[in-house]
Amino acid sequence: MTYKIAILGASGYTGAELIRLIATHPEIEIAALGANAKAGQSMASVFPHLRHLDLPDLVKADDIDFSQIDLCFCALPHKTSQEVIRELPKDLRIVDLSADFRLRDPAAYEKWYGNPHAAVEMQKEAVYGLTEFYRDDIANARLVAGTGCNAATGQYALRPLISAGVIDLDNIIMDLKCAVSGAGRSLKENLLHAELSEGYHAYSAGGTHRHLGEFDQEFSLLAGRPVQVQFTPHLIPANRGILATVYVHGNAQQIHETLSAAYAAEPFLQVLPFGELPSTRHIRGSNFCHLGVVADRIENRAIVVAALDNLTKGSSGQALQNANVMLGIEETTGLMLAPCFP
Amino acid sequence: MTYKIAILGASGYTGAELIRLIATHPEIEIAALGANAKAGQSMASVFPHLRHLDLPDLVKADDIDFSQIDLCFCALPHKTSQEVIRELPKDLRIVDLSADFRLRDPAAYEKWYGNPHAAVEMQKEAVYGLTEFYRDDIANARLVAGTGCNAATGQYALRPLISAGVIDLDNIIMDLKCAVSGAGRSLKENLLHAELSEGYHAYSAGGTHRHLGEFDQEFSLLAGRPVQVQFTPHLIPANRGILATVYVHGNAQQIHETLSAAYAAEPFLQVLPFGELPSTRHIRGSNFCHLGVVADRIENRAIVVAALDNLTKGSSGQALQNANVMLGIEETTGLMLAPCFP
Amino acid sequence: MTYKIAILGASGYTGAELIRLIATHPEIEIAALGANAKAGQSMASVFPHLRHLDLPDLVKADDIDFSQIDLCFCALPHKTSQEVIRELPKDLRIVDLSADFRLRDPAAYEKWYGNPHAAVEMQKEAVYGLTEFYRDDIANARLVAGTGCNAATGQYALRPLISAGVIDLDNIIMDLKCAVSGAGRSLKENLLHAELSEGYHAYSAGGTHRHLGEFDQEFSLLAGRPVQVQFTPHLIPANRGILATVYVHGNAQQIHETLSAAYAAEPFLQVLPFGELPSTRHIRGSNFCHLGVVADRIENRAIVVAALDNLTKGSSGQALQNANVMLGIEETTGLMLAPCFP
Amino acid sequence: MTYKIAILGASGYTGAELIRLIATHPEIEIAALGANAKAGQSMASVFPHLRHLDLPDLVKADDIDFSQIDLCFCALPHKTSQEVIRELPKDLRIVDLSADFRLRDPAAYEKWYGNPHAAVEMQKEAVYGLTEFYRDDIANARLVAGTGCNAATGQYALRPLISAGVIDLDNIIMDLKCAVSGAGRSLKENLLHAELSEGYHAYSAGGTHRHLGEFDQEFSLLAGRPVQVQFTPHLIPANRGILATVYVHGNAQQIHETLSAAYAAEPFLQVLPFGELPSTRHIRGSNFCHLGVVADRIENRAIVVAALDNLTKGSSGQALQNANVMLGIEETTGLMLAPCFP
Repeated sequence: MTYKIAILGASGYTGAELIRLIATHPEIEIAALGANAKAGQSMASVFPHLRHLDLPDLVKADDIDFSQIDLCFCALPHKTSQEVIRELPKDLRIVDLSADFRLRDPAAYEKWYGNPHAAVEMQKEAVYGLTEFYRDDIANARLVAGTGCNAATGQYALRPLISAGVIDLDNIIMDLKCAVSGAGRSLKENLLHAELSEGYHAYSAGGTHRHLGEFDQEFSLLAGRPVQVQFTPHLIPANRGILATVYVHGNAQQIHETLSAAYAAEPFLQVLPFGELPSTRHIRGSNFCHLGVVADRIENRAIVVAALDNLTKGSSGQALQNANVMLGIEETTGLMLAPCFP
Repeated sequence: MTYKIAILGASGYTGAELIRLIATHPEIEIAALGANAKAGQSMASVFPHLRHLDLPDLVKADDIDFSQIDLCFCALPHKTSQEVIRELPKDLRIVDLSADFRLRDPAAYEKWYGNPHAAVEMQKEAVYGLTEFYRDDIANARLVAGTGCNAATGQYALRPLISAGVIDLDNIIMDLKCAVSGAGRSLKENLLHAELSEGYHAYSAGGTHRHLGEFDQEFSLLAGRPVQVQFTPHLIPANRGILATVYVHGNAQQIHETLSAAYAAEPFLQVLPFGELPSTRHIRGSNFCHLGVVADRIENRAIVVAALDNLTKGSSGQALQNANVMLGIEETTGLMLAPCFP
Repeated sequence: MTYKIAILGASGYTGAELIRLIATHPEIEIAALGANAKAGQSMASVFPHLRHLDLPDLVKADDIDFSQIDLCFCALPHKTSQEVIRELPKDLRIVDLSADFRLRDPAAYEKWYGNPHAAVEMQKEAVYGLTEFYRDDIANARLVAGTGCNAATGQYALRPLISAGVIDLDNIIMDLKCAVSGAGRSLKENLLHAELSEGYHAYSAGGTHRHLGEFDQEFSLLAGRPVQVQFTPHLIPANRGILATVYVHGNAQQIHETLSAAYAAEPFLQVLPFGELPSTRHIRGSNFCHLGVVADRIENRAIVVAALDNLTKGSSGQALQNANVMLGIEETTGLMLAPCFP
Repeated sequence: MTYKIAILGASGYTGAELIRLIATHPEIEIAALGANAKAGQSMASVFPHLRHLDLPDLVKADDIDFSQIDLCFCALPHKTSQEVIRELPKDLRIVDLSADFRLRDPAAYEKWYGNPHAAVEMQKEAVYGLTEFYRDDIANARLVAGTGCNAATGQYALRPLISAGVIDLDNIIMDLKCAVSGAGRSLKENLLHAELSEGYHAYSAGGTHRHLGEFDQEFSLLAGRPVQVQFTPHLIPANRGILATVYVHGNAQQIHETLSAAYAAEPFLQVLPFGELPSTRHIRGSNFCHLGVVADRIENRAIVVAALDNLTKGSSGQALQNANVMLGIEETTGLMLAPCFP
């Protein structure tokens, strides 16, 4: 059987990445591509790398006949997404790639995003889209909220450790190194090649990055008590990749065993042999996440390093994985592409 | 039906690229991976980006049982390749990715490569592997010689024009911009990141690059008289891609029409609308070649620009395309992956 | 003696580069920095890499007391520059880095820039700022027009050859590879790191790039008859550098001798030994231009390659060199910094 | 007065960087350049970016007449350095850029470097070359040991805090992001452009990196009791720069005040306003170190970020700064070059 899908926000990087992946998917057909600002244009003119594909032209979201659509991906900017989704048919299955439905608590949403939520009821309905940990809920969900790319990376490193109680919850530091495509196709001075190339820096340090809202929500839920982590993202001169270096207090061997056991059956989460460390170059363009554990020379300290591609496992790949689960398709379909190296 | 293949030279970039592509191929199974210097190692240790695949360990070429192999890819260094292939079973189908069997004339081989050929009879038997132009010969070939990556790019830009007689054969200049993976995984000072990044230069200028041997052979054959082109490659700080800017004398509109007609039915050769120009970023990681034509302000001068990925269409993708033809598999199988952008 | 200078347009890359160079200049003092849109800000906030310098804050151009200024650098956008310069005191010495006063002929200006010139009389007064060829005129000039960065590169490769009559004037092809800082600090999608990095392409091909106006003007003047060259720029994923690969008809040895003789006494123009080729990495951040000559295998064909830093020798370094000449300071003062490699 | 210096190991990156800096130094003259493997070659052939300088050709160290040399820079590989320095005249002033004389304790040296020291007496004599903290000792030293580039970065962030007792000594985590030139011009697979570009990873994690020996020595000395830090370096796809993100327990405002006070009179150590963070792009090619402090949302936690150029402030710039002190030259001479951005 073939399912018809629509993508809203098809002219951004996550929209393009969804199309790249779906192009190899035997059971999903792209029926409509929405991009209000570029409606009327062909995808080949917006993304020439997709010119070999037979794709529908871009249209305004309002011009899509959703009665013919089995599932809709929303790759829209934050805040726009909730306003658009609120108006979509109430029985349409939706995978949202924005931040709008990640936080269940309206107060938490308002705290981190600075405005009241425009679709509070849907906020409650939405299922958090970290597939490996919400698989059953996702299978039955109508609206799935894709996780933040940083939030996904950190959670893959930490969730099993928090659940198993093998680390100190009050001493968790996440130092993230993020490639630039996570900032999207937006025109900002600091995203120019001449600015970014050959230099790197920390940003949103000290507990101000919005993905902390997700960490707080999920880790506290897992632990059954409030958990606050330290989290510093850094912008690195590369296009794809997130590398999370996580400093924890705990026994490194036990941590490695806990992660290995938790992910033994997961096709996309690969725990390296003890002492080996991942690299973003080895997951680029793929839906895989590589994890490594090293013991520190200081007793009871360990380092967990996780690497994934922010556009794939951190966003569009995760979205397709969730769509597969929602539509009853084998979960890995269209997602087993090997990383592109070098 | 599933065909079993072997790859000799699996620890280099073109070997890894073959595996990346074949991993999505439903009719080909990787039965053996040869790499003499790294025999005994797992592919995950040599290329961690392939660790999710269930691949055989690396072995010495001598330890492969070729009676079980339907086709062998040789991704070995130049000169080594002819010595290894000479010893392989005489009924084994082979796609060679090295330069060893590209030139049919032993004298031309010796001129460009500096040593007498070690397998002269096979040199005559080999079919030149530019699929779109030697398709029928390849279907019946035992030994196919993959073209040089630069040679492929230039030929896609020029062959139909030479055949159609629409350009001046004595005024052809090819200025190529080549990414660094074309140099392979070899340890040379000028390939270090600290040397190459942020800088670029011309090399092998003035008619000394070995791929000229292929241009001379093929263009002269097409034209029915000796043709010599000018060809200057440049090393660019990027990992994948070749961009050929070809300066010709002729009518630009006629040139565009000639290329468009010649490639109308070719799945991988995409001629852009007149006046549009390709970019290497839009073919990265794919088997596509984008071509554009622009008229110069000087009458009867035109510029043809061709872009392809040296590791895919310029090497391993072309090799798989040829293997498909040799094995009677649909030619595009395993090769329709969209480019990876950004 | 110390001269006081002002810089208008100090918040752009060429403004910052001027300050970087002047910071080591013992006879020039920065008295005023103009940047209308950022007036009131400190340079440290606009360009943190200059924070160690004791610089005046940015002000509006109108708020500068030019009676205290010995020379003014205008690093403003094209078209804005002529409007601002028109209103400056008529006895103020000016080095303009924009394109506005490069073309002497109002009709040529209008043809290439699409609008009538707003200060036609000054257009006639302006001296073309290619220091090595207009040194005497510059010494006596009030208004010097800095050349285009591409135009400078091509002229260094070709002017002595045209003057000496050693190349065919009807067969000159310039293939340029340009780094991205030449596009300035402007917010355009194709200048984003995620777009540009790892890819490259030709642009303004076929005779449409504005720097052709300079080539036409200067080469025709030198030759005493109309000369038209072919010129294709390419955008390369690097921040600084222009590499011009110039294809000419002529005797390579004679060409090398002509260039070597012409530049024997020039401190910034370095002709490499015959057969050696320059690289942009070896001039990065400096005022040097490296030139190389190679013979082609085809008789009477040669390749001249020139490399310079578009922000330094191609723009701000050239501007400072001209200012030195205008102020009677030793020409190389502040400009002998070695390139920054790696 | 002009001092004559020699550089041993002039064919490596730190040797070239020394020459780049000294080229602008009015009181130092380069009298001899040693490079055993490349003896007889010109610097222009080894480092074409230095071709405009009038430099002596490379010679073997044994062929240098040290009686004419006022000070010798040793930019040799670790272990080679101690063997060479042992044989140099005993009254020759030496600045060593290798790791060989950084650790005062022979046992600590053997622990971190794996071999007994070959010049134990000199090990005791050597002064640790972190200029700002050992200035008086350096002025009187015969042999100064340049610090590790990572070790310098971390110490600039932490020394005043340890001295002032404003942070918890048992909870210090340093997460470093290092550019590739720190690895030198060595031929290793993971330093190739095709390997490194577009990817990044942690290495020597868990307390195995040799620069920990310096941290242990210096921090324990300062604190008057053993101090052990956690330290994870990461290799970033850039050529120059180290960014240290340091996680400490303490009051962020107090930490900022402590650093600001400690460095108020230091020309090269620039503390940014509270809450601002540095970037490697803003110190590239210069001898400056930028430091920033941010408070975390968790009480009593702070983040200190330090950025410097590993080849300049982290190595050759520091070496020249020390040489100035040793020779009685104004300390900043030849070192005030502005960073090269973009």
